[in-house]
Amino acid sequence: MDAGRVKQRFGARLRKLRKAKGLTQESLALACDLDRSYVGAIERGESNVSLINIHRLAEGLKLKPGELFGD
Amino acid sequence: MDAGRVKQRFGARLRKLRKAKGLTQESLALACDLDRSYVGAIERGESNVSLINIHRLAEGLKLKPGELFGD
Repeated sequence: MDAGRVKQRFGARLRKLRKAKGLTQESLALACDLDRSYVGAIERGESNVSLINIHRLAEGLKLKPGELFGD
Repeated sequence: MDAGRVKQRFGARLRKLRKAKGLTQESLALACDLDRSYVGAIERGESNVSLINIHRLAEGLKLKPGELFGD
């Protein structure tokens, strides 16, 4: 899978999971101690997000990191 | 979980999965088009590996990206 598509798929899945938890970008960002604008960039597929931030997002969503990846 | 521990756990799991597939660091690196030394650094917990490289490692191991994360 090409790099752009990897980032877009991750971002789309993050957005879906965040909405399923009833969280805004701002509330997720606060829970993760990340900038709201950075959460937005990840969801738009603009960020090659790192392992540590994947863990922070998972913690903010109360999910396991592996759950942030689809099949 | 603190950042160092996140990287160490990911690295330890990668090493375990690689060995379970009977691959050397070099053969995995070739399959992923990553440097062998970089694969070694990830396994030692020294790299905050990115989303795109997580996907490349998963492809090299013929696993889904989420499988690179334990519980």
